[in-house]
Amino acid sequence: MAVYTEVTDEQLEAFIESYDLGHILSCKGIAEGVENSNFLLHVDKGYFILTLYEKRVEEKDLPFFLGLMEHLSTRGLTCPQPVHNRKGEALGHLCGRPAALVTFLDGVWIRRPEVRHCAALGEALGKLHKAGGDFTAQRENTLTLTQWPRLFATVAARADEVQQGLGDFIEEELAFLQKSWPSNLPCGVIHADLFPDNVLFLGDNLSGLIDFYFACTDSLVYDVAICLNAWCFEPDLSFNITKGMALFSGYERLRKLQAAEAEALPVLARGAALRFGLTRLVDWLNRPEGALVRPKDPLEYVQKLRFHRKIGSVRELGLLR
Amino acid sequence: MAVYTEVTDEQLEAFIESYDLGHILSCKGIAEGVENSNFLLHVDKGYFILTLYEKRVEEKDLPFFLGLMEHLSTRGLTCPQPVHNRKGEALGHLCGRPAALVTFLDGVWIRRPEVRHCAALGEALGKLHKAGGDFTAQRENTLTLTQWPRLFATVAARADEVQQGLGDFIEEELAFLQKSWPSNLPCGVIHADLFPDNVLFLGDNLSGLIDFYFACTDSLVYDVAICLNAWCFEPDLSFNITKGMALFSGYERLRKLQAAEAEALPVLARGAALRFGLTRLVDWLNRPEGALVRPKDPLEYVQKLRFHRKIGSVRELGLLR
Repeated sequence: MAVYTEVTDEQLEAFIESYDLGHILSCKGIAEGVENSNFLLHVDKGYFILTLYEKRVEEKDLPFFLGLMEHLSTRGLTCPQPVHNRKGEALGHLCGRPAALVTFLDGVWIRRPEVRHCAALGEALGKLHKAGGDFTAQRENTLTLTQWPRLFATVAARADEVQQGLGDFIEEELAFLQKSWPSNLPCGVIHADLFPDNVLFLGDNLSGLIDFYFACTDSLVYDVAICLNAWCFEPDLSFNITKGMALFSGYERLRKLQAAEAEALPVLARGAALRFGLTRLVDWLNRPEGALVRPKDPLEYVQKLRFHRKIGSVRELGLLR
Repeated sequence: MAVYTEVTDEQLEAFIESYDLGHILSCKGIAEGVENSNFLLHVDKGYFILTLYEKRVEEKDLPFFLGLMEHLSTRGLTCPQPVHNRKGEALGHLCGRPAALVTFLDGVWIRRPEVRHCAALGEALGKLHKAGGDFTAQRENTLTLTQWPRLFATVAARADEVQQGLGDFIEEELAFLQKSWPSNLPCGVIHADLFPDNVLFLGDNLSGLIDFYFACTDSLVYDVAICLNAWCFEPDLSFNITKGMALFSGYERLRKLQAAEAEALPVLARGAALRFGLTRLVDWLNRPEGALVRPKDPLEYVQKLRFHRKIGSVRELGLLR
């Protein structure tokens, strides 16, 4: 939930006038999205999302994100489509921040995904990976293996405030992942944050993917591992293998996982769990007083990681080979 | 800014199915409105606002508020129109809270009102008072003179934390208002909270009034006093008499103020300033840690009150008699 930046009438009007969209009919701050300020904008030409990029998003990365959304749109994937202003630019500035307009997508996100949603998600992820196949821009994953020790170092001394022994647990896991992380897997554009709140449904049909602001170039199956963690655990944090099976079979309808990818999955799932556990831990320990955003619980991902440590083979995750 | 209540898919679907509006196409929490949880809902039949009433709004008052909006709509005033469900009811329940759907109004609120906006606001207020003339339901003003001492008592001991001498200042003002408050002025339905964020404009045209959840039965000119305070001071808290003149002349195009009302205005403006100063002071001193809402500054209204104490006649507010 976030509207960090207050936009004045004059600023907004001047910005919208730089587009060929007609007059502003309404503009409401949206209480969703943690990283940026988002507004649902109604203009003569329809509904759009206005995003002001706050400090966590690097301006140099915006052409990658916006270009990717355009690329995927033209490949038939339903995702927000950047709107070009009269100068032909997808990226502008508002209130001293980079800002962009994208098309508004109908759909609601599923608070409690069921098996059929996991199947649809898997299929959409496969479609995304295929559609991104010929996207030539690259962006390094800034939240991967090489970054985790540095990230952990900022909170290591206080990790045990959150759970007794957590510091040692993460230390040990980092050591394991550093030596076990697979390389040479098929790479491409990954979404890297395809949680349920970034996937829209209309009824039972998946209607769109949103929030590409963590997208980067990395191994495709790592994206599958992120989704497995985000979609296939129950609220009590038990793993639902039926959901895992649905996700994999949905994905493989579009793109078959190679043997090396399947083999790498259990380690990647541990890494994916650690990555979200770590960023949540950092947010948790650094939450400002009076923050607008209630940070997510890092222990949810610690527990998912503990599950993956007990996994013997990828079959136990639902990938039948 | 507020979305206090998380609504699950199933709850929302069941609620919307009780209306004849078609399927849910999208539902976004809105980062506006301090008192309730608001969602912008897109369904087959259009855009609507879904409101979940949180604890500050009393359920017994909701039929008054919803009935008033319906009444005003039928009298040609543009305000949110409550939607009836299949059983014919405007008020339902969702997530254990009273909940209602109203039509969505286009328009943006003006962050920095200018003279022309004050004129339009005055006219809309006159229209509201006329349109409410034959609304028969009554609701006592629960934030008026008789309630202020009780409200102040809850924070009196800590008032000086906000400004040295503030406790005595309010005490003295309360004593003055108790003996000077006018009675027998023309009464009717007042909005009682017609601040800029509750008034929508499309371009320079006022397009609608929203948020009737403080509406009550009180002297009409008290509503004018509230607006005078909310619309006619500059950001540096100086009073702009041109804006006052615009507001009054806009209002009087619809409804002429009686001599007794004009005479009462300076005292009512002090009372209106104290009322918002007091509720802001209470919110300020009771803000929970990590609150989603940044409380408004009580001293803004204390300073407006100080201005009104120096006023000699209603001419100095812009009402030329």
